[in-house]
Amino acid sequence: MDLIIRNGTIVTEREMFKADLGVKDGKIAVIAGDLSDLPCENVVDATGKLVLPGAIDAHTHLAFPFGGTVSSDDFFAGTRAAACGGTTTVFDYSGQAKGETLLETAKRREAEANEDGPAVDYALHVGITDLSNNLLDTMQEAVDYGISSFKVYMVYDFGVKDGDFYQVLQKSKETGSLICVHAENKEVLTTLTEQFAAEGKLSPWYHYASRPEFVAGEADRRAIAWARSLNAPLYIVHMSDKEGVEAVTAAKDEGLEIYMETCPHYLHFTRDVFKREDGRNFVCSPPMKGQESLDALWEAVKRGDVDTIATDHCPFQQSEKDWGKDDFRKIPNGCAGVENMYPYILSKANEGVISFPRAVQICAANPARIFGCTQKGSLTVGKDADIVIYDPTKEFTVHQENMHSDSDHTIWEGLELHGYPVQTYSRGRLVYDNGAFVGERGWGKLIKRASRK
Amino acid sequence: MDLIIRNGTIVTEREMFKADLGVKDGKIAVIAGDLSDLPCENVVDATGKLVLPGAIDAHTHLAFPFGGTVSSDDFFAGTRAAACGGTTTVFDYSGQAKGETLLETAKRREAEANEDGPAVDYALHVGITDLSNNLLDTMQEAVDYGISSFKVYMVYDFGVKDGDFYQVLQKSKETGSLICVHAENKEVLTTLTEQFAAEGKLSPWYHYASRPEFVAGEADRRAIAWARSLNAPLYIVHMSDKEGVEAVTAAKDEGLEIYMETCPHYLHFTRDVFKREDGRNFVCSPPMKGQESLDALWEAVKRGDVDTIATDHCPFQQSEKDWGKDDFRKIPNGCAGVENMYPYILSKANEGVISFPRAVQICAANPARIFGCTQKGSLTVGKDADIVIYDPTKEFTVHQENMHSDSDHTIWEGLELHGYPVQTYSRGRLVYDNGAFVGERGWGKLIKRASRK
Amino acid sequence: MDLIIRNGTIVTEREMFKADLGVKDGKIAVIAGDLSDLPCENVVDATGKLVLPGAIDAHTHLAFPFGGTVSSDDFFAGTRAAACGGTTTVFDYSGQAKGETLLETAKRREAEANEDGPAVDYALHVGITDLSNNLLDTMQEAVDYGISSFKVYMVYDFGVKDGDFYQVLQKSKETGSLICVHAENKEVLTTLTEQFAAEGKLSPWYHYASRPEFVAGEADRRAIAWARSLNAPLYIVHMSDKEGVEAVTAAKDEGLEIYMETCPHYLHFTRDVFKREDGRNFVCSPPMKGQESLDALWEAVKRGDVDTIATDHCPFQQSEKDWGKDDFRKIPNGCAGVENMYPYILSKANEGVISFPRAVQICAANPARIFGCTQKGSLTVGKDADIVIYDPTKEFTVHQENMHSDSDHTIWEGLELHGYPVQTYSRGRLVYDNGAFVGERGWGKLIKRASRK
Amino acid sequence: MDLIIRNGTIVTEREMFKADLGVKDGKIAVIAGDLSDLPCENVVDATGKLVLPGAIDAHTHLAFPFGGTVSSDDFFAGTRAAACGGTTTVFDYSGQAKGETLLETAKRREAEANEDGPAVDYALHVGITDLSNNLLDTMQEAVDYGISSFKVYMVYDFGVKDGDFYQVLQKSKETGSLICVHAENKEVLTTLTEQFAAEGKLSPWYHYASRPEFVAGEADRRAIAWARSLNAPLYIVHMSDKEGVEAVTAAKDEGLEIYMETCPHYLHFTRDVFKREDGRNFVCSPPMKGQESLDALWEAVKRGDVDTIATDHCPFQQSEKDWGKDDFRKIPNGCAGVENMYPYILSKANEGVISFPRAVQICAANPARIFGCTQKGSLTVGKDADIVIYDPTKEFTVHQENMHSDSDHTIWEGLELHGYPVQTYSRGRLVYDNGAFVGERGWGKLIKRASRK
Repeated sequence: MDLIIRNGTIVTEREMFKADLGVKDGKIAVIAGDLSDLPCENVVDATGKLVLPGAIDAHTHLAFPFGGTVSSDDFFAGTRAAACGGTTTVFDYSGQAKGETLLETAKRREAEANEDGPAVDYALHVGITDLSNNLLDTMQEAVDYGISSFKVYMVYDFGVKDGDFYQVLQKSKETGSLICVHAENKEVLTTLTEQFAAEGKLSPWYHYASRPEFVAGEADRRAIAWARSLNAPLYIVHMSDKEGVEAVTAAKDEGLEIYMETCPHYLHFTRDVFKREDGRNFVCSPPMKGQESLDALWEAVKRGDVDTIATDHCPFQQSEKDWGKDDFRKIPNGCAGVENMYPYILSKANEGVISFPRAVQICAANPARIFGCTQKGSLTVGKDADIVIYDPTKEFTVHQENMHSDSDHTIWEGLELHGYPVQTYSRGRLVYDNGAFVGERGWGKLIKRASRK
Repeated sequence: MDLIIRNGTIVTEREMFKADLGVKDGKIAVIAGDLSDLPCENVVDATGKLVLPGAIDAHTHLAFPFGGTVSSDDFFAGTRAAACGGTTTVFDYSGQAKGETLLETAKRREAEANEDGPAVDYALHVGITDLSNNLLDTMQEAVDYGISSFKVYMVYDFGVKDGDFYQVLQKSKETGSLICVHAENKEVLTTLTEQFAAEGKLSPWYHYASRPEFVAGEADRRAIAWARSLNAPLYIVHMSDKEGVEAVTAAKDEGLEIYMETCPHYLHFTRDVFKREDGRNFVCSPPMKGQESLDALWEAVKRGDVDTIATDHCPFQQSEKDWGKDDFRKIPNGCAGVENMYPYILSKANEGVISFPRAVQICAANPARIFGCTQKGSLTVGKDADIVIYDPTKEFTVHQENMHSDSDHTIWEGLELHGYPVQTYSRGRLVYDNGAFVGERGWGKLIKRASRK
Repeated sequence: MDLIIRNGTIVTEREMFKADLGVKDGKIAVIAGDLSDLPCENVVDATGKLVLPGAIDAHTHLAFPFGGTVSSDDFFAGTRAAACGGTTTVFDYSGQAKGETLLETAKRREAEANEDGPAVDYALHVGITDLSNNLLDTMQEAVDYGISSFKVYMVYDFGVKDGDFYQVLQKSKETGSLICVHAENKEVLTTLTEQFAAEGKLSPWYHYASRPEFVAGEADRRAIAWARSLNAPLYIVHMSDKEGVEAVTAAKDEGLEIYMETCPHYLHFTRDVFKREDGRNFVCSPPMKGQESLDALWEAVKRGDVDTIATDHCPFQQSEKDWGKDDFRKIPNGCAGVENMYPYILSKANEGVISFPRAVQICAANPARIFGCTQKGSLTVGKDADIVIYDPTKEFTVHQENMHSDSDHTIWEGLELHGYPVQTYSRGRLVYDNGAFVGERGWGKLIKRASRK
Repeated sequence: MDLIIRNGTIVTEREMFKADLGVKDGKIAVIAGDLSDLPCENVVDATGKLVLPGAIDAHTHLAFPFGGTVSSDDFFAGTRAAACGGTTTVFDYSGQAKGETLLETAKRREAEANEDGPAVDYALHVGITDLSNNLLDTMQEAVDYGISSFKVYMVYDFGVKDGDFYQVLQKSKETGSLICVHAENKEVLTTLTEQFAAEGKLSPWYHYASRPEFVAGEADRRAIAWARSLNAPLYIVHMSDKEGVEAVTAAKDEGLEIYMETCPHYLHFTRDVFKREDGRNFVCSPPMKGQESLDALWEAVKRGDVDTIATDHCPFQQSEKDWGKDDFRKIPNGCAGVENMYPYILSKANEGVISFPRAVQICAANPARIFGCTQKGSLTVGKDADIVIYDPTKEFTVHQENMHSDSDHTIWEGLELHGYPVQTYSRGRLVYDNGAFVGERGWGKLIKRASRK
C-alpha cells in the first residue's frame, strides 16, 4: 500500500462506519476492519476523524472572460483553493467562441488549463452559444472525447433563444449528454434593469430588484417544459428561488429526470446583503433571494430534491467590483466560493442540519454520478483516492488571509465553521495539510466523462 | 312601449323565469309577470320560446390583413352573419400600425368600420405591436375614448417580447384596462416548423405538430407569471390546451384575476381534422389539440373556469386556403365562426351539457362584464334591448347556403343543431327573422367601454 | 300594485341597476325603469338606498336540545331576530329522534315551529341520526314532502360513522336530495379533550386546542372522498379551516359538486377569542381557528369558492355558558348570529372587501339555488317579495340592547357596521322598520323545496 | 478469512463495482480490488455474478392466527423459503394479545420463533391492539429490548380507532420508535361488504369491490394527517393504490418523514385476478387494484417514492382458501411471497426496469435503515455477512415444486424470471445453494434494533 488511513469513520453517501482504508497507485485498494498487518510506509491515524470522498464542484468559472474582465482565479489558483477546501475535482464552464466546434472549445480550454497547471483534477462543460453552420452537430465528437455535458444560458448576450434551447435538448438525447441551464428571463430582467436605470435606481439592491424571484421561477418552469416535451434530462444550475424548487420537485414527482443544483450563497445569504455597504461584492447572477427561498432550498436539500451543491465560483477583484459602486450594471457578476463549499456544508452536517452522508451525496456522489465522472465521488474500492480527512472538532473562521484563491476578498469573511478539513488527497497524493497547500502546479488532469448511453 | 315580448321564458346568467318584457327607445324598459294591459303596436308572442340576451363575440378579425391577404368578412358582412347567429355585439382586434398611437389605431378602424356599415354594434380592442417612441404612453387616451382593452401576441412577427409584454401589463394597471394575450411560444414553434419543413413534412397535420400542446401550455404559464408578478388582470384568448386550462384554474384558486376564453372549434374538433382531406380549411392558430384538451375545456366550461366563448372569426376564401394545400405554411390562419357560436353553445345547453343560464353567462354576461360593456350582456331593465328569441324545438343543419358571412365555405358544414334562434333584435330593432337578415347596413355603432377604475 | 319601491338601486347577484320595483300578492310583479304612472297606495322612496333580496340563513338551530339544555331562541324569537337583520328565510336543522322516520321528524318540527309562530318563512333540514330498521328508506317521502336536504354529523354521540355517511350519500343520489355535513374527527377530538382534561387544562382555550385545524381538515377531506366515490353532491357546513378550504377548492377544480358554507364568526374572529375573559361565550363547534384560516376563508369568499354564508345560530343564555367557566366541556356549544349575518356581510361589501352582488349571491341567491328554494333568493319577477332596503350611509353599532333575539348577550357586542338595513319585507309585508320589529308572530310559513330531480 | 468471494460485481444501493469480498466471524471483513494473496479455505468464484446484500422482508406473518386458522408457514418454514429466495432477514408482525404488555408480546413471539427454529435472522414488529390500562406506556420497555417498531391496523376487529392511533403516534415520538399502519377505511368497507352480501354478490371479485381504491386512499390520507399533526414518522405498509402513492409523494414533498412500502403482488397483478377461476387464491388485504394503481406504484418505485418492498407473506393452504369459494368473506386473507420478492425485483432490474442498486436499496438497504437494523442491509465492512450471489443469466420459472414454503400453492405459479440467486449466506454461512436449502433449523436469531433516539 502507498497510503493507509486507519481508525477513521468512513462516510459514504448512505452510511458511516469505522474502517481502515488503503490506497495504491492513486486508487482505493482496500477497505477493511483492520489493516494493521498490512505493510505501508505512509500510515495516517484518523482516530476521531471522518474520512470523506473529496468534493466535486460541478460549477466554476476559471479565467472566465466576463463583465469586461476575466475572473481572477485561473486553473491553478482556483484548484489550489479547491484543494484547500476539500474539493478534489472542479468543473469549468467553458464558453464556445463564435464559430468553434464544441470539441474545439473543449480542447482550447484543456490547453489553457494545462498551461495554468491545475492542482487537482478538472472536467469541462461546454457552454453552447453558437448554433449556426450546424455546429450543434459537433456535439457527438465532444461527447466521444469525454465532454458529456453542455450548458445553455437563457440570459446574457451569448444566451440562446427557446428554439435553440429546444434543439440543444434534442441533440443531447441523441448523444447521451446532459444539458445544464442558467434559467432567468432575459427580456424581463432587461426591461426591469432599464426601468430602474431610467429612475436612477442603480445601487446593488437593484441588481436583485431587476432579477427577483419570478424572473427565475418563470424560466425554471419554461426550461422544464422543454425537457418534459422531449423527455430529456436537464440540470438546472444555481437554483436560487422557491418557485424553481417547487417546479423541480413537481417535475421529479412526474418522473422526469430533472436535476437541481444550488450554491452555498443561496443557502446562507438573502437579498438583504445587497443593502450592505459592501453589497456590490455579493453581486452574482442569479442574485440571492428572500428568506422564503432560502428556507425552501434548505428543505429541498434535506428531503433530497436538491441534487448537488456547487459554487459558481467566479471571483473578481475588489477594484473590479468597485466599478459598479454607483451603478450595479457595471459590477462583474460573480463571487469566490470554491474553497468554502465543502467546509460550509460539512459544518452544517456537524451541526445536525443534515447528515454527513447527505453532505457527501450532494457534494460528491451525486455530481459524479450525474456527470458521468465514474472514477470519482465515493470511497469505493477501485475509484480514485480523492480523500478528505475531516476533524469535526476543529473550529475555523473564514478570513481572506486563510483562503487560497487569488481573489483579494471573500463574501464569506468571518464565517464561523464547526469542523474543518485537515488533509486533502488527490489520487492518493497529499495536496492540503492543515491550512497549507502542499500540492503542485500541474498535478491535476482532465477527467473524461462517460455519456448516458 | 315600442316592443313587447310576451309569454317567453327569460334567461339570465343565473335564472330562467316566465315573464313579459317591454322595450322602449332601444332599451329594456320593463319586465313583468303580465304586460297584457300595456298598449303596444309591436307585440311578439314568445310562448314556448326562450328570450335571451344577444351574444357578445369578444374575438373577431374583420377585414384583417393577415397571411398575405385580408380576412374575407368586412364589418358589414361579419356583423350580418353575427346578427343571424344571435350575436349582437362583436369585438374587433384592431392592429396598431407601426408608429400609430393606440387611439389613432382605434379611430382609423372606427372609420373603416363605419364605412363598411356594421349591422350590429361593435367594439374595438387594439393590438399593441409597437412600443417605440413611448407609444405605450398613449394607452390612457385610448382608454379615455372608450377602448379599455388591448392585446399582445406572443407569436407572429408583430408579436411582442416578454419585456414589452410586461410593460404593457404595467401600463394596463395604471390605466385600468385589460390585456388580452395570444399565448404560444414563438421560438419553439418556429424551430419545429423549420424542422418539419426541412424534412418535407408540410401537410396540414404539421401545422398542429409544430404548435402542439406544450407550445401553448408553456406560454400560458409564462403569461400568467407576468400577471401574477404585477397582480394585473389578464385575459387569455382562444384557450385550446389542457395545460393552459390547468394553469388558469390554479391561478384563479390563488385569487388572481385571470380570464380564460375558448372557442367553439376547440370544444368541437380535435387535431384529427388536420388529417382530413380538407384539413387546410381548419388551419387556425392555435390549432385544435387532442381529445384530452377538448375534454378539459368542456370540464372548465361546466365548472365555470372558462369565462367566455368567442369565435376568433377570421375567414379566408377557399382559394386562399388552397394556397397551402401542399405547404401548411402558406395557409392563411383562421376560420369563420361568428354565426355559429351562440347556436352551437345553446344547442349544447338544450342537450343538457350545460344549463341555459351558463350559456348566457359565457356568451353574453361575462364578456360584457369583463370588457366594461356596461349597457350589454343581460336582459336587465335599462340595458340595450339586444335580444334573441330562441326556439328550442327547431332543428337546424349548418350549410354554407344558410350562412350569412361572405366566406365561401364553413368548417361547420353539416353540423346538426337542436334549437335555433328565430329572431334577433339590436337595440330593439329586428335584424334577423327566421333565416333572413332583415337589418340594415350601418345600424351598428361603436360601443365605448368603461375602464376598471 | 300593493307596494312600489321607487328610485332605489336594485342589487342582483351579478348586477346593480336603478329601477322601480312593484309587488303584488306577495310576489315581485314588475321591475321597470319608471313606475311613477302605476297606481299604488304604498309607495316607498328608496332614493340613495339599495334594494336587496332578503337573506337566507341556511343554518340555524332553533329551540335546539343540546349540551344539556335547549338553545334560547325558539322559532318566533329566532325569526324575529332574523327579520330585524334582513334575513327573510331561515333553515332549521331538525334532529331525527330515535326510531322516527325522516318525515316524522320534519312534521314534528313543523308543528313545533308553527306553534312558536315564526315571523318569517322557514325551511327544515333533517339531521339523520338513526339508520336502523331501514329508516333511511324513508328519505324519499321526506323529499316528496319538500324536505330535500339532510344532515350528518361526523361528531357528537348522535353522529354517524363513515359507513352510514356513505349510505346516506347513496340514498341522496337516489332521491335527488343534498347532504350537509358537520366535518370534524370525533375520535381524535375526544382523545385530545381527554388528554387536556387529564392535565387539568380546562379553560375555553382548550375547546379550540382539542379541535384544532387538522381535526377539521381531515374530516373535510374524508367527507369529500365519499362524495367523490359516489359522484354525489355534498354541502360542508360552517367551514372554519384553511385545510378544508383548500380541499373544497381542489374538489371543485375536479368538477365535483361540493358546496362550502362558512359563518361570519369564522370570518371575523380567530381562536384568540378563547383567551378572552369571556372566552366561554365564543365556544361553538367547530371553534374559530388561526389567522391563516380566517384569511383563507376570506380569499375563498372573494374568488367564489365559498358558496354560502350562514350563521349556525344556536344561542345559549349567559347563565348556561357560565356552566363551563372552569371546564370547557360543560359550555353549551353555540352562539347567536342570525341578526348579524347580512348586516356584517353587507358592511364588508360597503367597505369594498367584496361587491354587493357577491354579498347577495352568498347570502341569498346561492342558498336558494343550492337548497331548491325556488321562490326565494333574488329580486326576480314572480318570486316572493322578500326584500331588504339598505341604507349604505347608516352607521350602526351592535349592542345587546338593539338586538331582537331572546339571547341575553352577543359575541358581536360593539361591532361597528357601515350601512344597515332600514326595512325588511316578507312576501311584501313590512316586518322590520328602522330598528323595530313590526311583523307578527305566525306570519312565517314552511317553505317546501324542490329536489334535484 | 472464513470466506472469500472473488471476481464478482458488488452491488450497493448506489453503485456496482468489481471487487473481492472477505468474511470473518460472520461479518464482512474486507473489500478489496484483489484478495488473491489472502489465505482462505473457502474461496468462491463469482465471475460473471452479482454479489448483493441479502434482502430484508420487513412484512411477514408467520404462524399468524387469522381468518379462523393460522398462516401455514411457521418461523422455520417461512425463513427457509426466505433463504431460498435470497432474503436473509424477515420481520414478523406479532399481534398483542388482550392485556399483554408490548414487551410480553415480543417475548412470547420470540419464544415461539425460537421453538420453531428460524433458518435466517428475524426481527419483530408488535401490532398494537389494546391500549387499555396504560398498556401503551409499556412501549418504552419494548423499545429498550430492541423492538423499535409497532403497527396499528385501521381495519379488522383488532384495529384501533383514530384517537388511539393518534396516541400511538404520540408515544412513538417519545420512545423513538416507528409506527407502521395498515390503511383502509374499516367502516366503509364493512358497509360495502354487507351491501354486496345482501345482493348475493359473494364471488372473489367482491373482495376487491368492497375495498376499492378510494377505501384505501382515504385511509392513507387520514394516516398522514395524524403523522403531520405530530410531525411523527410513519410507515405505510403494503401500498396498493394510486391515491395513496400521490398522498405519500406530496407528504414527502412537504418534508414529512413518511415511508411507503409496496409488495410484488401490487406491482404484478391487478384486480383482474379476482375474475380468474382461482381468484380466491389471490385474496389478500388490501386487494390488488386497477392498472392505473399498478402503473403509479411502478413510477414511484422508479423515482424513489416507494421506500421498501416487502411481501406481506401470509400463506393459507388451498383447502383453507377454498372455504370461500362461494363467499369471499370466508377466504382467509393472504398469500405466499417471501421466496419470490427478491428474485422478482432483481429480474425486473435485470430487464432494465430499474437499476440493480435501486433493487438493493428498496429490498435491503432501506428497510435496514428505516427499522434500525444497523448490522444488516448492505455489503459494508463490519456488517453481517448476509450475502446473495446472483446469476443474471439463469432462467427460472416459479413452480410450486421449486418453492420452499410449507404453502401448498403459489399465486406466482408460472412466473418466468430472468436471473436468479444461486447462493445465499446468512452471517457467512451458506444456507441456500443452487435450488436447495442447505441451512439449519435454529440458525436464525432475533435482531434487536436501534431506536431513532
